[in-house]
This record gives sequence, C-alpha cells and structure tokens, in this order.
Amino acid sequence: MKNKLSVVKIGGNVINNEEHLEEFLINFSKLEGLKILVHGGGTIATKMSDQLGVVTEMIDGRRITSAESLDVVTMVYAGLINKRVVAKLQNHDCNAIGLTGADANCITSSVRINYGWVGNIKEVNTANIKLFLSNSLVPIFCPINHNGKGQLLNTNADTIAAEIAIAMSKEYETKLVYCFEKKGVLRDINDDNSIISWIDKETYQDLKANGNIDRGMLPKMENCFLALENDVSSVVIGNIAMIQNQDALHTTLTL
Amino acid sequence: MKNKLSVVKIGGNVINNEEHLEEFLINFSKLEGLKILVHGGGTIATKMSDQLGVVTEMIDGRRITSAESLDVVTMVYAGLINKRVVAKLQNHDCNAIGLTGADANCITSSVRINYGWVGNIKEVNTANIKLFLSNSLVPIFCPINHNGKGQLLNTNADTIAAEIAIAMSKEYETKLVYCFEKKGVLRDINDDNSIISWIDKETYQDLKANGNIDRGMLPKMENCFLALENDVSSVVIGNIAMIQNQDALHTTLTL
Repeated sequence: MKNKLSVVKIGGNVINNEEHLEEFLINFSKLEGLKILVHGGGTIATKMSDQLGVVTEMIDGRRITSAESLDVVTMVYAGLINKRVVAKLQNHDCNAIGLTGADANCITSSVRINYGWVGNIKEVNTANIKLFLSNSLVPIFCPINHNGKGQLLNTNADTIAAEIAIAMSKEYETKLVYCFEKKGVLRDINDDNSIISWIDKETYQDLKANGNIDRGMLPKMENCFLALENDVSSVVIGNIAMIQNQDALHTTLTL
Repeated sequence: MKNKLSVVKIGGNVINNEEHLEEFLINFSKLEGLKILVHGGGTIATKMSDQLGVVTEMIDGRRITSAESLDVVTMVYAGLINKRVVAKLQNHDCNAIGLTGADANCITSSVRINYGWVGNIKEVNTANIKLFLSNSLVPIFCPINHNGKGQLLNTNADTIAAEIAIAMSKEYETKLVYCFEKKGVLRDINDDNSIISWIDKETYQDLKANGNIDRGMLPKMENCFLALENDVSSVVIGNIAMIQNQDALHTTLTL
C-alpha cells in the first residue's frame, strides 16, 4: 500500500493577511502524514513591482514575466514569502525546507512562448522530494523553477501544485488541496454560502457556460481535472478550516 | 579517516560582477569532494534598500537590521542572489540546494542586542547538512537564519561560513576558503601584489597595530582564527584562481 501524501496549495488572501497565514500554518503544521506546501503570492509581488517601478503586465490572470519582473518575483516568492513561511512553520515544530524548482533540481521547465520568463513544467524530479519527505522534512515550494541551463522561470502556483501532485502519485496516495479564502467553489460569486459540494467534468462545463463563476477559478479547476486524470487520488478546494477538519464545507472534484 | 569538505565563502565583488560570478561558479562546480558555498551580497542589498527608500545603517561594517531592512536582505540574499547562484550551478552540473538557516532548521541564532534583527549563531544542526552532502547535494547558504520562534535573522556571511566549518569539523576534515576580489591579505592596501603568504596570530597582531591593513579584513581574520582554534583543518583567503589551482597566490592562516 502506498503512503499517503497531501499537497496543499495556498494563495491569495491567505498569504496577504498575517492572521490568516498564521492560522493556516498552525493547521498545516498539525496535518498528519507526509505533506508538501505550495504557495503563490502575486499580490505582494505586484505591490513590490509598483514600489520598484516595474510594470506588471497580465494576460488572463497570468503574469507576463520580464527580466525585471522575474527578479521581483524571485525576491518576493523565493525570498520574502517562502522564508517567512518556513520560519513560522519551524516555530510550530514543522521541519520545513523552502524550495524553488532549481533547488536540488526539483522542477525543470521550458520557456512558454510570448509570456517572457514563464516556464511550462517539463519534469518534477521526485527522487530528491522523496528524500526530503522520508527524512521528516516538509518541502515548501514557491512557484519559481528553472530550465536547467541557468535561467530561473516563473510558473503559476496552481499548476506547480498539480504537477507535483501528479508526479508524486507514482509513489504516494496523493491528495491535492487548493486552499484559498472561500469555503469552496461558489455557484454564485456574489453569495459566499453558495458552495458546490461536488463538481464533475459535466458540472464544470455547465458552470463555465453559465458564466456566473469566478473566472479565476477556471484555470484552477482545469488543474484539478488534470490531476484527477493523472492518478491523483482526490482533489478538493476550500478554506483554512478544511485543512484540519474533514467535515468543514468544501468542494470535492471528481471526473 | 574523515571525509574532506570545503566550505567556500564568496562575497563582495565576486557576486556583484556577472562575469566574475560565472567564472567563480564554473571553478566551484569543478571543485572535487564535498563542498558547501556561503554567499553574502551586501552591495546589492544596499542598492535595493536605496531603491525602496529603506535606510541602511552600518556600525563597524555590520548592517543594523530594521524590520524593513530584514525584508530587503531576505529578498536579496535568500531570493535574488541565492536562486540565481543555484540555477547557474545547476547549469554546470552541480546539484545545488539553496538554504537559509531556517530551512531544515540548519542554523539557529539569538538576537544580538542593539543591532536590530541580527542573529548571533547558537547552533549549526549538522544532521540535515550531512544528509544533503551524502546525497550529492551541494548546500548554498545565504546569511539569513532564524531564532526557531518564527523570526528570521541576518548574520554576517563570514561568520556563518566559519560557524558552519567549525560545526562540520566534527565529522569532516574541513577546509575554510574565503574567496574575494584580491589574491590574498595585502601588507599594503595600496599594493595589490603585496600578498602575505602566511599569517599566524602574532603576525595578525602586528598587522593590526601597524594599521595599514584593510579594516574590513579584521573581522574576517578573527573568524579565520576562531575556525582554526575549533578544529577546522585549514583556512585560506584569496581570489577565484585559488579555488581550482592550489598553486595560485593566496594567504594561509595558521595559529
């Protein structure tokens, strides 16, 4: 029987709000079994870019990464946010190790045409990630990786989380958890209580056609289905409460 | 017999100059045996502080670290410089892993009174560093560590290198290498060729009294003697050439 592994992704308001982040990290540190955390941090990167006068260009919610912009996200994701998260987890007896895809060559990418220094993930090297997990270390990935030829690249954190979960599924029974500020996927973006408990591919198509769903959720859900189609055991979307309490409201994705 | 380990520290102009850095990293990647790299990056941090309007205060060449200043050095050291170095080393077939002291709880510190968020090193946890080395990973440390209670701290990179070398000496025959832009310690700061081949504690006292030595060298040499007094096998100061070529001019420290 395979060991169980949770791949948890946090983003958005969980990271931007000091209290939410602390609450999340306490819950995450208590999460039993093997675990990996993936974080984004786009809002802080945008703020830092503004302070430094670096223009942030977006297409469909994806950042166009110029050389200057890559420096900013490398500083903010791999430096500021990643190390703050690691230090806070250490305080909660969670032996965290902060990583980019370049570290221990964990994740390699190729450059995505027309997006600047953005990487399409080519390979997740599971051997070293497994080495960390089997030595009681908890990998904390930020969404920076590399092309193996000396160039750092920026990749959407939701995608990183899905690709890590897919790669690790070969060796672990893997659960992918997208944790954000809402309790789950909402039927109506104006109603925080309109959580949809189960979404399969058919429901997803209906939601997309209906058009009342948060557009930012669409690529996230594409990643969910990609994960399910590639042997990830379960995929859920919800808020901090869900990390500790299985009964807390959330959305479960199924094929 | 103990395995051999090199702890190499680079700083100053080696990091600030793209070509020097590349040349150094090629030499470092070819260095045989187990190895650890420690880097600083003060000049880039000062530049970034200026851009962000964060005032950099120094006492005796040591940075006073305010909360804002800590954010800047965390971004620059742990993010920008550390990940650039890691990606470049990966390109030279060196399986680098970038670390702060918070990662895998490698280095813990206590707050140094009157210097803001500056850490006096309390402990280097050798077990995980050994785990990385014995799995063909090359640790790349930046001078950020933590107090184990959620607080990141900033420590002089020369000191970090010496403390790592001292801690690792229990298990490895450890050589400590300070690599900077000069060929060694100069008898006369105005003459780049006035390299002193050997410095023992007596010579050091004479140099200090004489007063013609670069003042920035004094704390570095204090670290050298501290290392030698604590079982580090050999300590040298020199430039990039020395990393590959044992016969290149450099300064050797002895007790």
